[in-house]
Amino acid sequence: MGPLPRTLELFYDVLSPYSWLGFEILCRYKNIWNIRLQLRPTLIAGIMKDSGNKPPAMLPRKAKYLTNDIQLLGQHIQVPIQFPKDFFSVILEKGSLSAMRFLTAVNLEQPEMLEKVSRELWMRVWSRDEDITEPQNILAAAEKAGMSIEKARALLEKSSTPQVKNQLKETTDAACKYGAFGLPVTVAHLDGQTHMLFGSDRMELLAHLLGEKWMGPVPPAVSARL
Amino acid sequence: MGPLPRTLELFYDVLSPYSWLGFEILCRYKNIWNIRLQLRPTLIAGIMKDSGNKPPAMLPRKAKYLTNDIQLLGQHIQVPIQFPKDFFSVILEKGSLSAMRFLTAVNLEQPEMLEKVSRELWMRVWSRDEDITEPQNILAAAEKAGMSIEKARALLEKSSTPQVKNQLKETTDAACKYGAFGLPVTVAHLDGQTHMLFGSDRMELLAHLLGEKWMGPVPPAVSARL
Repeated sequence: MGPLPRTLELFYDVLSPYSWLGFEILCRYKNIWNIRLQLRPTLIAGIMKDSGNKPPAMLPRKAKYLTNDIQLLGQHIQVPIQFPKDFFSVILEKGSLSAMRFLTAVNLEQPEMLEKVSRELWMRVWSRDEDITEPQNILAAAEKAGMSIEKARALLEKSSTPQVKNQLKETTDAACKYGAFGLPVTVAHLDGQTHMLFGSDRMELLAHLLGEKWMGPVPPAVSARL
Repeated sequence: MGPLPRTLELFYDVLSPYSWLGFEILCRYKNIWNIRLQLRPTLIAGIMKDSGNKPPAMLPRKAKYLTNDIQLLGQHIQVPIQFPKDFFSVILEKGSLSAMRFLTAVNLEQPEMLEKVSRELWMRVWSRDEDITEPQNILAAAEKAGMSIEKARALLEKSSTPQVKNQLKETTDAACKYGAFGLPVTVAHLDGQTHMLFGSDRMELLAHLLGEKWMGPVPPAVSARL
């Protein structure tokens, strides 16, 4: 028996494009590196509020850069990411509260579905420019991920219970305690030490900390499958 | 004869720690990849002013993160980077105007010395917590880089001429026109296209754009020498 896997917590919100990139990279490496990946649905609006940070796209020059950066990274990382046409309405006004509560309910009741449902929500908002705030659209993402419509409806109902609301708040608070001022945040628990890494561009550094091999954002085992 | 090297412009300021990391990585790859690296001394204060951006360390939670991030990246990238004890005084108050004017003069008169003198200034401010604003300290960095004291004095004198002041302004303006809101900025000129990459963490993406191989921040040819 080899050494025990190290725990990585990935705090993410489907509203955050860099969260999607980080999520796909870690989902690819979770069966290559000796890690146990915990997906932690988090509310980015709560993190911004608590840290006093502002979305980078509020600065016009950063907004322009982000559009290019995300397009180039999407090609490189092989994630079909596309900016929504009306970024300010989709990201800053509509937000992700219902979607992240739904993912929190999925995590509580059917954690094995969390990865797929999260990905389908990103496919909606960050690839096909589709809504993720209306109940029928959240249900559509869950169905596309392979969940039965009955189960999806039950989880949507559960989404508005205090249990789920509190759990999302607790997870968001936990990210803040680790020092988050945005998402994604990866927390690596290694030999009694805790490292918080911000963004999707610290994965090679993460490999270094883990003593694992970095093989780029599309490791060979995955590129064979793509 | 192979294809012509692609031009990369690296805009940097010795006040910026991530500039140092990006600079060392590109200096390592300049003889491995088919590129022509142009070092462009820039004034970060001018970029912040023009873009309306603020230094990330102004947000307390980011400041805390940066300290850890830079320490971890320094180990990984093998650059002896260390936070100055009084960050706010060194970075936000004292600034880098004289140092960047001096480097601009070096670039005009003795461009083959620019890499070494830049590195010695970083060694002062970002490794040994030493001043880079007093004339004798700028001269000391130049001497340590191998420049004669006479030449260093002449370049220091030249630093306050309109020619040098204007050149630094022009370089800073050029970075802004490429969309800079911080440093480092790498501008890659490829097949008639121009890509602006921000930060020290887009070097793997840069390799992808160049069609070159990314071998980590310490490519084998360099690690043999270290």
